[in-house]
Amino acid sequence: MKALKEKIRQEGSVIGTEIVKVDSFLNHQIDVEFLEEIGLEFSKRFSGVKVDRIMTVEASGIAIACLTAPYFGYPPVVFAKKAAPSTMNAGFYEAEAKSFTKGTVSVLKIAKDYIKEGENVLILDDFLASGQASLAMADLIAQAGAHVAGVGAVIEKGYQGGSQLLRDMGFQVESLAVINEVCDGKIYFDSDRG
Amino acid sequence: MKALKEKIRQEGSVIGTEIVKVDSFLNHQIDVEFLEEIGLEFSKRFSGVKVDRIMTVEASGIAIACLTAPYFGYPPVVFAKKAAPSTMNAGFYEAEAKSFTKGTVSVLKIAKDYIKEGENVLILDDFLASGQASLAMADLIAQAGAHVAGVGAVIEKGYQGGSQLLRDMGFQVESLAVINEVCDGKIYFDSDRG
Repeated sequence: MKALKEKIRQEGSVIGTEIVKVDSFLNHQIDVEFLEEIGLEFSKRFSGVKVDRIMTVEASGIAIACLTAPYFGYPPVVFAKKAAPSTMNAGFYEAEAKSFTKGTVSVLKIAKDYIKEGENVLILDDFLASGQASLAMADLIAQAGAHVAGVGAVIEKGYQGGSQLLRDMGFQVESLAVINEVCDGKIYFDSDRG
Repeated sequence: MKALKEKIRQEGSVIGTEIVKVDSFLNHQIDVEFLEEIGLEFSKRFSGVKVDRIMTVEASGIAIACLTAPYFGYPPVVFAKKAAPSTMNAGFYEAEAKSFTKGTVSVLKIAKDYIKEGENVLILDDFLASGQASLAMADLIAQAGAHVAGVGAVIEKGYQGGSQLLRDMGFQVESLAVINEVCDGKIYFDSDRG
């Protein structure tokens, strides 16, 4: 998605060789009109895919999921909550997600009421890096006896291998901007697929 | 807002005499089409008010702010991040917010880049109870030399006094459903103002 790559080039800031910050439109300040374009693009990438529900993770995923939902006919959105590994509760599905960037493990939780057996669930998130958050969401979906309709990420860090891991599990993965390398403060994308 | 009160009556669950959970459409699962109606209602309540920016708090406020922004002509949305009281950073405005329900103090943070002097900032949140989160946001807005355009809440717990506190400071406060009492597992609203 060209407009997204341009926005990341213009507004993104790089920390070291791993972290790309897009706080100006995605992770702190939110450009709602632009995220509507993102939502429309997701609906094109997953056109023909049956989506009964959209799942994401708090906090930054919420805006993306909510602004994408209209283009899929307003399926319910559910966001996984991040909890400390110790909290257990019978009313929830839980799955562990490691963050390689932060070196932490968090537990993603979804109340059993808000995902149903047989549903086709589209996973959306801001970043796809090692894929751990998406894998944890896929785990939650499997626990509920539901199906992964696909995995959509606004920005993929292609060099961290997550998308291949998810594709190997048979999932359709759509990343709207794939970063191949971050070097000397510059961001390099894969060839623009539009 | 009648449709909201009906939805709270039908789907809300009451814990004790203080907590009303609306996880089915607002705080965990999100009914995007319904939140668009909420956004439209906010735009009617604040019609004629100049809004340069919408501010909210992660996580549940994000959906509300993003789905309201289109009705105000797409101003930028910024969400305050919750941090532990010790984290200080020169690039941020910070304000303390006590949660009476949880008995905790958190610090709300906004990067200085994402609020500008002279802006008219509409505060939106899911719940208005004691008003501490809104007061903290008003504090952040004042630190930036910006102005509070108004305070909008989806659900107000009228018996906790927050809205009066905010009105006494001269702010326009609009709550779309005001709960006056929670008793024996039932929710009582003020008279419906539409």
